[in-house]
Amino acid sequence: MKLRRSERMVVISNYLINHPYELTSLNTFAEKYESAKSSISEDIVIIKRAFEEMEIGNIETLTGAGGGVIFTPSISDAESKEIVQNLCNQLSESNRILPGGYIYLSDLLSNPKILNNIGRIIAKAFRDQKIDAVMTVATKGVPLANAVANVLNVPFVIVRRDLKITEGSTVSVNYVSGSSGDRIEKMFLSKRSLKAGSRVLIVDDFLKGGGTISGMVSLLAEFDSELAGVAIFADNASARSKDLFDHKSLLRVTNIDVAENKIDVEIGNIFDKS
Amino acid sequence: MKLRRSERMVVISNYLINHPYELTSLNTFAEKYESAKSSISEDIVIIKRAFEEMEIGNIETLTGAGGGVIFTPSISDAESKEIVQNLCNQLSESNRILPGGYIYLSDLLSNPKILNNIGRIIAKAFRDQKIDAVMTVATKGVPLANAVANVLNVPFVIVRRDLKITEGSTVSVNYVSGSSGDRIEKMFLSKRSLKAGSRVLIVDDFLKGGGTISGMVSLLAEFDSELAGVAIFADNASARSKDLFDHKSLLRVTNIDVAENKIDVEIGNIFDKS
Repeated sequence: MKLRRSERMVVISNYLINHPYELTSLNTFAEKYESAKSSISEDIVIIKRAFEEMEIGNIETLTGAGGGVIFTPSISDAESKEIVQNLCNQLSESNRILPGGYIYLSDLLSNPKILNNIGRIIAKAFRDQKIDAVMTVATKGVPLANAVANVLNVPFVIVRRDLKITEGSTVSVNYVSGSSGDRIEKMFLSKRSLKAGSRVLIVDDFLKGGGTISGMVSLLAEFDSELAGVAIFADNASARSKDLFDHKSLLRVTNIDVAENKIDVEIGNIFDKS
Repeated sequence: MKLRRSERMVVISNYLINHPYELTSLNTFAEKYESAKSSISEDIVIIKRAFEEMEIGNIETLTGAGGGVIFTPSISDAESKEIVQNLCNQLSESNRILPGGYIYLSDLLSNPKILNNIGRIIAKAFRDQKIDAVMTVATKGVPLANAVANVLNVPFVIVRRDLKITEGSTVSVNYVSGSSGDRIEKMFLSKRSLKAGSRVLIVDDFLKGGGTISGMVSLLAEFDSELAGVAIFADNASARSKDLFDHKSLLRVTNIDVAENKIDVEIGNIFDKS
């Protein structure tokens, strides 16, 4: 379809936003929008500048026969920090405390806008890593993993705590259940859900004992895959897990006072320079 | 930040794409990009035309003091049908048959691009309905519900088959388990996860007996909420569920032959005019 230049720029930027981390040749655009490759090339320069000025992301141009453009989404530090500070305030609300000192998170982790923002922030924090898949454990981690995988444009893999017929053959490992301290439980991953040799980013909602994460790390070994990093929505400052493995957290819960109905939350280590 | 017109159009279209179903005043853009409201107005006209020509979506302009623009994402019929036909072919692959006649779907439902496309197609099919939330049952429905909620920019609600401490107070209903025929099981929904008076779109991966959907419908009544519609990734042609309630399906499995290792799949009723 033939479009005016201004319209063409709108639809090319829409295309790039919806195809992150994908190489698209300029010829594809030239054919699609019935324009000269040189015009498309000029469009890309303008889009690139706009994306960079607003920190929407970067556009890389690869020259040569197999060349084209790749869009990598980003988010500005200012916007990231404002989003995390906002989440910090929401998590501090006293009505989130559940019996047993648990924290209600489901409203935050079922809001598409929040999830999308979290996905962009986590993806940016791991932008130097090659990531082939995002892994999480059912159920609460799923929307988070989905959000990060969405930005990275890679599949996500769901580990289960129960065996489902619809998953086919599975591999299982034992792990120490975080909530109950020293109970040993099993987690399962469908054999065909992860290719050997994958570099995997593990994502979860809350980190307390670290048993679930350790379980997923041992599953990675069973699948001849490698850990690319661990990202957590909220971790617990008192958790001994911080000694077990490196992770990046958006939020850190420093204190839960059930008697006083008070949660203290601060920004996690995701913005720390390592 | 002051931008050139062409750059401004790129960032305004990016903003609209990331804020579907949201009213944004022209003043917001005028202040953000240090431009006259009349220039923004002209930009919107061009973006609107480009979005409509490529069927990316519609931009509605509301005039008056509380006015602004609202972007509603869409997808062309041609693209929708190509996507669903493609899914049809993938679902027909013989290696998906699991013992017991189950079908392996997890690879399709963990691919961000597929999920995003499904989300757009389902959202378009229900565009005449007011929808306040999307509901599904854990675990496999979650990425689907997430994808639809993402496009509609509404929260999603996860019904569970087991009781979790981290959900706080829950409401439970009994339902007839689809897979086992006549076993009665329980499903749970956190009390604070759904506001009274919500209009809810139910989304699930596979429809066989319809027991799970009926369970969710009875949960809606417990939450003084209303059913806006039912969307299913794949339904089973032989299911008696089609007599129980209206639903829209992307795919229809007409036959599973475990002995011959063969699945017959056709396009569901989502494109039928009702």
